[in-house]
Amino acid sequence: MTLPASPKTNNGRFFEDFCPGEIIDHPIARTLTDGDHALNLALTGSRHALFSDRTLAFSCGLDPGMVDPMLVFHLVFGKTVGDISLNAIANLGYAEGRFLAPVVIGDTLRARSTILGIKENSSGENGVVYVRSEGFNQYDHCVLTYARWVMVRKRDRNRAAPVPQIPVLSPIVAACDLVLPHGLRFENLDRIRFGGPHAYEDYAIGERIDHAEAMAVEEAEHQIATRLYQNNARLHFDLHGQKATKLGARLIYGGVAISLARALSCSGLGGASLMLAINGGRHVNPLLAGDTLYAWSEVLDRAELSETIGALRLRLVALKNRPAADFTLRTGTAPDAPYAPEVVLDFDYWAAIPRRSAFSA
Amino acid sequence: MTLPASPKTNNGRFFEDFCPGEIIDHPIARTLTDGDHALNLALTGSRHALFSDRTLAFSCGLDPGMVDPMLVFHLVFGKTVGDISLNAIANLGYAEGRFLAPVVIGDTLRARSTILGIKENSSGENGVVYVRSEGFNQYDHCVLTYARWVMVRKRDRNRAAPVPQIPVLSPIVAACDLVLPHGLRFENLDRIRFGGPHAYEDYAIGERIDHAEAMAVEEAEHQIATRLYQNNARLHFDLHGQKATKLGARLIYGGVAISLARALSCSGLGGASLMLAINGGRHVNPLLAGDTLYAWSEVLDRAELSETIGALRLRLVALKNRPAADFTLRTGTAPDAPYAPEVVLDFDYWAAIPRRSAFSA
Amino acid sequence: MTLPASPKTNNGRFFEDFCPGEIIDHPIARTLTDGDHALNLALTGSRHALFSDRTLAFSCGLDPGMVDPMLVFHLVFGKTVGDISLNAIANLGYAEGRFLAPVVIGDTLRARSTILGIKENSSGENGVVYVRSEGFNQYDHCVLTYARWVMVRKRDRNRAAPVPQIPVLSPIVAACDLVLPHGLRFENLDRIRFGGPHAYEDYAIGERIDHAEAMAVEEAEHQIATRLYQNNARLHFDLHGQKATKLGARLIYGGVAISLARALSCSGLGGASLMLAINGGRHVNPLLAGDTLYAWSEVLDRAELSETIGALRLRLVALKNRPAADFTLRTGTAPDAPYAPEVVLDFDYWAAIPRRSAFSA
Repeated sequence: MTLPASPKTNNGRFFEDFCPGEIIDHPIARTLTDGDHALNLALTGSRHALFSDRTLAFSCGLDPGMVDPMLVFHLVFGKTVGDISLNAIANLGYAEGRFLAPVVIGDTLRARSTILGIKENSSGENGVVYVRSEGFNQYDHCVLTYARWVMVRKRDRNRAAPVPQIPVLSPIVAACDLVLPHGLRFENLDRIRFGGPHAYEDYAIGERIDHAEAMAVEEAEHQIATRLYQNNARLHFDLHGQKATKLGARLIYGGVAISLARALSCSGLGGASLMLAINGGRHVNPLLAGDTLYAWSEVLDRAELSETIGALRLRLVALKNRPAADFTLRTGTAPDAPYAPEVVLDFDYWAAIPRRSAFSA
Repeated sequence: MTLPASPKTNNGRFFEDFCPGEIIDHPIARTLTDGDHALNLALTGSRHALFSDRTLAFSCGLDPGMVDPMLVFHLVFGKTVGDISLNAIANLGYAEGRFLAPVVIGDTLRARSTILGIKENSSGENGVVYVRSEGFNQYDHCVLTYARWVMVRKRDRNRAAPVPQIPVLSPIVAACDLVLPHGLRFENLDRIRFGGPHAYEDYAIGERIDHAEAMAVEEAEHQIATRLYQNNARLHFDLHGQKATKLGARLIYGGVAISLARALSCSGLGGASLMLAINGGRHVNPLLAGDTLYAWSEVLDRAELSETIGALRLRLVALKNRPAADFTLRTGTAPDAPYAPEVVLDFDYWAAIPRRSAFSA
Repeated sequence: MTLPASPKTNNGRFFEDFCPGEIIDHPIARTLTDGDHALNLALTGSRHALFSDRTLAFSCGLDPGMVDPMLVFHLVFGKTVGDISLNAIANLGYAEGRFLAPVVIGDTLRARSTILGIKENSSGENGVVYVRSEGFNQYDHCVLTYARWVMVRKRDRNRAAPVPQIPVLSPIVAACDLVLPHGLRFENLDRIRFGGPHAYEDYAIGERIDHAEAMAVEEAEHQIATRLYQNNARLHFDLHGQKATKLGARLIYGGVAISLARALSCSGLGGASLMLAINGGRHVNPLLAGDTLYAWSEVLDRAELSETIGALRLRLVALKNRPAADFTLRTGTAPDAPYAPEVVLDFDYWAAIPRRSAFSA
């Protein structure tokens, strides 16, 4: 006997449940431990020195327990899923992501979202929801803010379309809006210990780097990572249910692709440990277990933040089952030609990197 | 040349090795760390707020490092395997499980078992062993006690059957025997932060909840979890050996099914974070890697433990490869009809939950 | 458009890039946390009491946070990969491995290597590089030293072969060179709590022990372990690339086989928790995901280190998909007959073990 869904169960919101201006406090905060940090490292393969070597972090003026900003992103994102994207069809994009304060082992994170806008799709079956999400620590300091837009199913396709409200989002975070962790200093750095012999001045705008490494993804890996982030979107876990969909398989949480590609970028961009902002990002094609990920980066812009600290604006492109040596991006030469089918991620971010003056002689 | 098994190797006890009244101190204690806690979370997907948010746990009067009682159960259970169930055919049931004191990060757990009874099966090839196991912390305080019965192979089927001794075990733990962690208080709780908007009074006896979520299980996941619990029963790990058995595959440790189903129940029973007792439990059909787990719960009983704390007695049923929306349990309508083939777990437990008066206005 | 490999990417050294006498400081140190320890336990299944029970470790005079020396080996090894073995074809052997000081949670490890010798192979396509690697903690104390030799591809097969320089390496570490952790004492030990009822005197030279347990290995497990160790050798991760090779699959990092076999040896050699030295080791046949590992040990030698502490020199042999009961090693009876195809590891090490006098009555 099939009963109606329990009103106690969270079945997620549908497109018509989102109202611009609404603020949603997401349930269940999360205290970060050494265990989370180690798991994140073991699941991604990151070798960024600032988050591997606590004596280095300390000597750079950071709390030695500071965690990778991408782990913060995943935890905050995970908290928003139950209210925002349980019925999402696709995560369409990110913008205006800024890491505002370091998060350290022992901190407790919670998340809040504000609905920025809505726009029904012409099919009448779903619509795009624009949302700003913020992560806060136990002192109620905002540690991360970002916007994303996501395609969400309608509950009732006969319901009239709402008036579209599309927010204006900046295509990039301006360099002057980048926030360095309080106390950060790059001084007398050892190039080897820092994990990247290359300084800010060694990277030219337009330069492309094939990250040379590769990483296959297994079902157990992405499921463990996605549960670590307490992201409970069903399409990442429900094998039985997904078999009945067009995809026919569990979709890997897009954040897994971002973190794996960032880890691959340790080869070539090892010095750019510290992500400062997310300008934008798109999950272009689905990543499935059994795929092998490759990645390349392009230097899009540069900014000098201090005498010793620079920032690189980087495009990070992840490919599946195709080495990155040929820098595949689109199927044609036009700037808006469709993405090549091997491309799974086109991600645009700022990272801090030492300037030459930061290195010891 | 095949030599006889080394007398130094633990080849496990057979049915005839168990003698009612015997007390077994199990080898190797286990110190719990933040790493164990994080792994348990990442492997189960639990979002129970008391074990996710240490500031919340602290504000409820708990040690912020208190771990999920089910992790304690798994660690204590794991310790008993080498002496009790290395030659087990099946884990038949649990009873009289009570969590007597909180276990916190840094505690060291050891286990002891008492043989309660034995009964040879009519086939003469195996028998049922009844055992009570207890977990102790480094101060020799008992933190957990439970009974289980397990079917164990005979070494020599020609040996005469012993006189059966079947212990009397309570079908349920009485509400007056539930032990709350010392200092626990539910006061001025924020419903959102607590992860469950529903209070004790919102649940009615007989109410059923489809937990709506789903979780596929991979070989790597259950192996990592079972090793974390230091449970070394061969049938969970020996792929080559299991291929020659009727099952033909590694059997997933039953505790993995319990913890995954409990994690699924966060959707609908989010406020019932704190397990207090295990009334009973049966692993009804085998769970194998590649299966997708679904779960539903039924409220069996309610008890008011204080002005602000209630307890729900819950039946937790886990299904494989079949959504829980139709509350599948048995193949017929008779109360003792066989379990449906999709049912893998029928588990009966008490959990604490805030009463309405515990929530802030 | 294919561009040349970026000079910023680490594409690894080729045979002709190694020069005897050269010292290489490897990038990126690694701070050990409780998370690393828990993951190592959950990935290997180790039940060695000294690294499971911190109250026991403390009562033996150790820092309770001391980690398994094999974890130290993996972390130091991992650091060397980028400079030594990114283009390795095979890891041929180890020698002169000595654990010189305990490593505890919170320590930060870095690695340095010295090129000991080179010898081009007759094919002209590759050569053997001999290297000594050392791990240091944050106080610049050497915690581990070992030699290994590895077959590395030549960049240019037309380049003339260098003059061979083959270092003289000891076939075993002498017992008098074994270093016990400062303060270690085995006194009034409880046999059960120590996890091995058998003392030093209970083991005879020539004795063989079938470890009776078994462990299947999954792709996700070895990838997570190898990333935990920050070992980024491509052949462990690049499924797409490996499909084009003769092996046709990802090769499991040899250290995973060592740690799994050591964990299996907890059954029969539970008291030999503390590895002191690696005399030698060979990865004889490849271990692939889906294989089931079995292991047996042979007591090669014994040494009395103090009134209460002994050391066993142990051969640890790991087999795939074949139980160890028949102690398979070679295809013939000659001492140098080829290894049987099931043998994946032939490892020779020293471990400390309590003498009878160390146990309480």
